[in-house]
Amino acid sequence: MTDAAPSSALLDRFAAIVGSAYAIREPAAQEPYLREPRAFYPAASPLVLRPGSVQEVAAILKLASETGTAIVPQSGNTGLVGGQIPRRDKPDVVLSIERMNRIRDVDPVANVLVCDAGVILADVQKAAEGVNRLFPLSLGAEGSCRIGGNLATNAGGTGVLAYGNTRNLCLGLEVVLPTGEIWDGLRRLKKDNTGYDLRDLFIGSEGTLGVITGAVLKLFPRPVGHQVAFAGLNTPEDALALFDLASGLCHTALTGFEIIARIGLEFTVRHIEGVRDPLPDGVHPWYALIDISTADSEETAAAMMTSVLEQAFERGIINDAVIASSVAQQDALWHLRESMSESQRPEGGSIKHDVSVPVSRIPAFIAEAGDAVMEAIPGARICAFGHMGDGNIHYNVSQPIGADKQAFLARWHEINRIVHAIVIRHGGSISAEHGIGQIKRDELAEVRGDGIEMQLMRRIKSAFDPAGIMNPDKVLKAQS
Amino acid sequence: MTDAAPSSALLDRFAAIVGSAYAIREPAAQEPYLREPRAFYPAASPLVLRPGSVQEVAAILKLASETGTAIVPQSGNTGLVGGQIPRRDKPDVVLSIERMNRIRDVDPVANVLVCDAGVILADVQKAAEGVNRLFPLSLGAEGSCRIGGNLATNAGGTGVLAYGNTRNLCLGLEVVLPTGEIWDGLRRLKKDNTGYDLRDLFIGSEGTLGVITGAVLKLFPRPVGHQVAFAGLNTPEDALALFDLASGLCHTALTGFEIIARIGLEFTVRHIEGVRDPLPDGVHPWYALIDISTADSEETAAAMMTSVLEQAFERGIINDAVIASSVAQQDALWHLRESMSESQRPEGGSIKHDVSVPVSRIPAFIAEAGDAVMEAIPGARICAFGHMGDGNIHYNVSQPIGADKQAFLARWHEINRIVHAIVIRHGGSISAEHGIGQIKRDELAEVRGDGIEMQLMRRIKSAFDPAGIMNPDKVLKAQS
Repeated sequence: MTDAAPSSALLDRFAAIVGSAYAIREPAAQEPYLREPRAFYPAASPLVLRPGSVQEVAAILKLASETGTAIVPQSGNTGLVGGQIPRRDKPDVVLSIERMNRIRDVDPVANVLVCDAGVILADVQKAAEGVNRLFPLSLGAEGSCRIGGNLATNAGGTGVLAYGNTRNLCLGLEVVLPTGEIWDGLRRLKKDNTGYDLRDLFIGSEGTLGVITGAVLKLFPRPVGHQVAFAGLNTPEDALALFDLASGLCHTALTGFEIIARIGLEFTVRHIEGVRDPLPDGVHPWYALIDISTADSEETAAAMMTSVLEQAFERGIINDAVIASSVAQQDALWHLRESMSESQRPEGGSIKHDVSVPVSRIPAFIAEAGDAVMEAIPGARICAFGHMGDGNIHYNVSQPIGADKQAFLARWHEINRIVHAIVIRHGGSISAEHGIGQIKRDELAEVRGDGIEMQLMRRIKSAFDPAGIMNPDKVLKAQS
Repeated sequence: MTDAAPSSALLDRFAAIVGSAYAIREPAAQEPYLREPRAFYPAASPLVLRPGSVQEVAAILKLASETGTAIVPQSGNTGLVGGQIPRRDKPDVVLSIERMNRIRDVDPVANVLVCDAGVILADVQKAAEGVNRLFPLSLGAEGSCRIGGNLATNAGGTGVLAYGNTRNLCLGLEVVLPTGEIWDGLRRLKKDNTGYDLRDLFIGSEGTLGVITGAVLKLFPRPVGHQVAFAGLNTPEDALALFDLASGLCHTALTGFEIIARIGLEFTVRHIEGVRDPLPDGVHPWYALIDISTADSEETAAAMMTSVLEQAFERGIINDAVIASSVAQQDALWHLRESMSESQRPEGGSIKHDVSVPVSRIPAFIAEAGDAVMEAIPGARICAFGHMGDGNIHYNVSQPIGADKQAFLARWHEINRIVHAIVIRHGGSISAEHGIGQIKRDELAEVRGDGIEMQLMRRIKSAFDPAGIMNPDKVLKAQS
């Protein structure tokens, strides 16, 4: 790979592959591809390419490998770690897969859906519903994120507890290698032990090993019964006991278990249109959202939810609870949970963490991180929430009231290091579901040291991308 | 890697690592490590090593890499494709992990169990039961296979429908690399998006990329309700309709769905002690075993099973059915299914296939393969059975009555090619759950051709095992 800007002639050769209508050179028109949701990564690019076929993607990567041109693959541009954004001050060419948005096949008997990687997640969900099936990947950005990006980042979301990460929802892939070769791994098989697991190597590699252009996704039967409840609790220990209870009573019918710190509830009530406190008669330090879905009937789901809450009251691990009595009320409870990030914005700067620990360690992590953060920034407002059942906490720290936003945000990496050290001590991960991208690359290297894991990752990178053109400096620092 | 026999001095150095009591040189004492269940692979070895710790495994592999000594890792020695057996006429050293059989930790709150790779599968199951949890991997050899081999081959079994393959049951690994370095990837996390998925690359790589020495396994709540039924049907199409019906009514509570051709039932009744025809009032061309497990109660499971069978009768897709009314009857139905392989032995030679196709293609595959096999060997008795819900059929062909066994078995690869060509046409796999090992290596290369997939596998192999000492000639032909 070269760091020199591609010549005008070379840019013309790239543009010719997709046609000039789909080769964007004007900065204003490039804006939607260069600026991500938080505008964290200032970027420029000599060229944004919008190929319309696997063959065009292959031709682009072949030319890139031959000429040492860095390529940044991009899907829905909703990622939070900068993986889909060109490097600052490097002439990276952007390859957007958004035009490749065809659903190729839906087979409800085999329970598979085959599609281009540029299909929007919500459209996959709808296509599944159209044949009375469920595609359970669900996250805030589902209306604009695309399945290729979900796969490239092994996206998580609220359905992981029962259905797993995106990795668990994929049977096969079509990938264009950095050299321009096409791997047709679009298998529709639940079992296939014929060699190394390339599929799972591409999933989660954040566009550094190739460009995912197509996928075979798993479909599931649609649940019949659905219940949502919201409970007030005193401590994370109680939340863990409640999760253990609900999991033991419901098994895979427990389709969601989210926790929210009191301050998070206050932020949403204060800032999000239409959100009310579901338990207005008391103030509870913690809240849990419980979601149950059953195969057979609404009655079974209701009986399960009643059983969970009754036993929880008996054991004294919840103070109060409400069960949604309509779909609208169910949606309102989920809306509260999903507004957590947005509700933090009006409160000033927020230093974010997307961490996981073994589920049993969540209370200890929350206690220790709270002490450490409050010592570093007295008055900080810790807005912890997330997917408790997955051990995944979005540990967000809002600035003290009246503090200077920029001065507070300048301490981002300092606070990250404090929190992540506690995460690591509990055997946790510094990126549970968002990935590494640009923002956590150097910290990953620090945390891992130069052990065999990073060496193996570098060897895989070299084996797949000898010219070093695929999304360089993301996840791993480019070899000079 | 060298093909020369290791010198006596070198063998002494290997033996010194584990101690002479655990370095076996006498052929008679080596026998249990060189002969697998079917005695298909004649083998000799200069040395069988039985290390007692990760450090000893590391020292062995380091010395092997330095001296170019081929190492064959072995777990419970129950594999069916020869992956764990030395090559014929090559001086491979065997590394058995059976002494490393300690359960390191069980955490029922985090739902994880951490163990050495040499723990017997049944002992993992028992340890999970001891804390009121389920480890759902279940297969015929569970009393003697060891978890390291289950992981190295991504073993399947009867629990895959609801819980997935071994890959889906593992959160973390400890692996000794061919160079002797140790990768501590013993993470207990449900979510961890910090780089390439090395775990899933080692899982299923059949000991060609390193030696798995430890694992973090997922535990599940134990089901409360359990129902088993056995139904008689006319066609594979009806079996598919029944599976679709049961899956739609039970979702993840459908914990088993196996099919058996009539001749398979006859073989077990004829040859297996204590097996009786569960539906003695009729002769049905096909049978289905339905297993339902529920979180809440026996009543729920019973209601689900009744509902499945009632609707199946109404739609005319089953002829007769019986629900086991005791645990003993449930065990008897499963025993019938699990005796299928054994019951074929007294009927003479059996040419076996472990294939998968998309679930919706099973009827077409069975019809086409039947025509082709009967044309090649008139009078052949096709004993198809297996995990219909996973698309995985054990398509075994017993010799015609009175045929010469050796002459019949000499046509193994010819019949494999005929059946596998149909499998490939339906987008299937020539090894659904047993792996590639020695027996399917050349056929895998034929089926895949020299495309990018085999190239990527070879590049990964070189990146992980530059000296080429790890289980050479298994899965991939060793590079000369």
